[in-house]
Amino acid sequence: MEEITVRTHRQTEMIDITAAVQDAVRRTGVRQGVCTVFVPHTTAGITINENADPAVVHDILMEIEKLIPQRDGYAHAEGNSAAHIKSSLFGCSTAVIVEQGRLRLGTWQSIFFCEFDGPRTRSVWIQVTGDRGIVKGEK
Amino acid sequence: MEEITVRTHRQTEMIDITAAVQDAVRRTGVRQGVCTVFVPHTTAGITINENADPAVVHDILMEIEKLIPQRDGYAHAEGNSAAHIKSSLFGCSTAVIVEQGRLRLGTWQSIFFCEFDGPRTRSVWIQVTGDRGIVKGEK
Amino acid sequence: MEEITVRTHRQTEMIDITAAVQDAVRRTGVRQGVCTVFVPHTTAGITINENADPAVVHDILMEIEKLIPQRDGYAHAEGNSAAHIKSSLFGCSTAVIVEQGRLRLGTWQSIFFCEFDGPRTRSVWIQVTGDRGIVKGEK
Repeated sequence: MEEITVRTHRQTEMIDITAAVQDAVRRTGVRQGVCTVFVPHTTAGITINENADPAVVHDILMEIEKLIPQRDGYAHAEGNSAAHIKSSLFGCSTAVIVEQGRLRLGTWQSIFFCEFDGPRTRSVWIQVTGDRGIVKGEK
Repeated sequence: MEEITVRTHRQTEMIDITAAVQDAVRRTGVRQGVCTVFVPHTTAGITINENADPAVVHDILMEIEKLIPQRDGYAHAEGNSAAHIKSSLFGCSTAVIVEQGRLRLGTWQSIFFCEFDGPRTRSVWIQVTGDRGIVKGEK
Repeated sequence: MEEITVRTHRQTEMIDITAAVQDAVRRTGVRQGVCTVFVPHTTAGITINENADPAVVHDILMEIEKLIPQRDGYAHAEGNSAAHIKSSLFGCSTAVIVEQGRLRLGTWQSIFFCEFDGPRTRSVWIQVTGDRGIVKGEK
């Protein structure tokens, strides 16, 4: 398993971690398979979306904030229920196909760590399953 | 990796791709494992839900449209921010267990490609990890 | 593939199934890999969140109920459209990394079965892909 450290700077923030995930995939030596990206936190999440225009990330965070307000009569005493709810809606894991040792993403896709209760120092765990090197039955 | 092409015909639409995913699983020759279904787009998604009554799909699309309106003061100039947001909420990947070379789905489950910014021609990528044929330690 | 049975007691409910999933992982004998947890129902889901303070689960269910009301002009005659919609938002599968035969979860993370149309008797399917025992190239 590989680990990435992510330093967040705002309460809610989406940080492009594609390059760091790609580095982790390379370190595993897996050539063909699936990369599982897992966030071990309950007030953060993971998503794949566009990073070409920063307005996309802005709009995602703004609209999710409208849907799940910071204060809305929550019971949880820590005051970060909105972050827990966003975490469940975005999910804490995603899977990306690996081919020839590289993440296979669409043209406009980047992998984002989603901070919903920052700023904090966070971790992302990466496991790659599949075949190392050239194996029989694979081209 | 296997690829499916999906032609969508409306702006928002859920298209049952279960049969095409099953065909792709068969082509990989994997008998026991996990099928990762990945959508390489940032304004589309993937979900598993009921296809017996088309009213279910109608209600899902209608309610998500209420939650994430097409226009809501978004910054992104392309005008398709709602589609990006829906993509992150539904997610662009899902995993289905494979047994004896077949997708193992619940009685009422179908795999749907979710178009949120159509009509377009879209791709779905499929990777199946696991064991081919009868291997030692597997029955 | 391993199977867990979950008995739910309310219409909407989140039930911590972490220990049962861990037992299933142990039964597979996989030491390093990824555990796919799959819910074969279209009115239930799966999520990972905090179980230390039960107020978190309360707040998640309350807020999702606000977003997706039980009645909202749905077309589906069975009257459980809200449950179908919640199922697509939470998702029916998740992935957890397995190391040394154990689920690798964050300090505050538990795996929850999410009932959105109970009470019912439900199933959860578990597939673990990866390496059994100590293999070459793995420590």
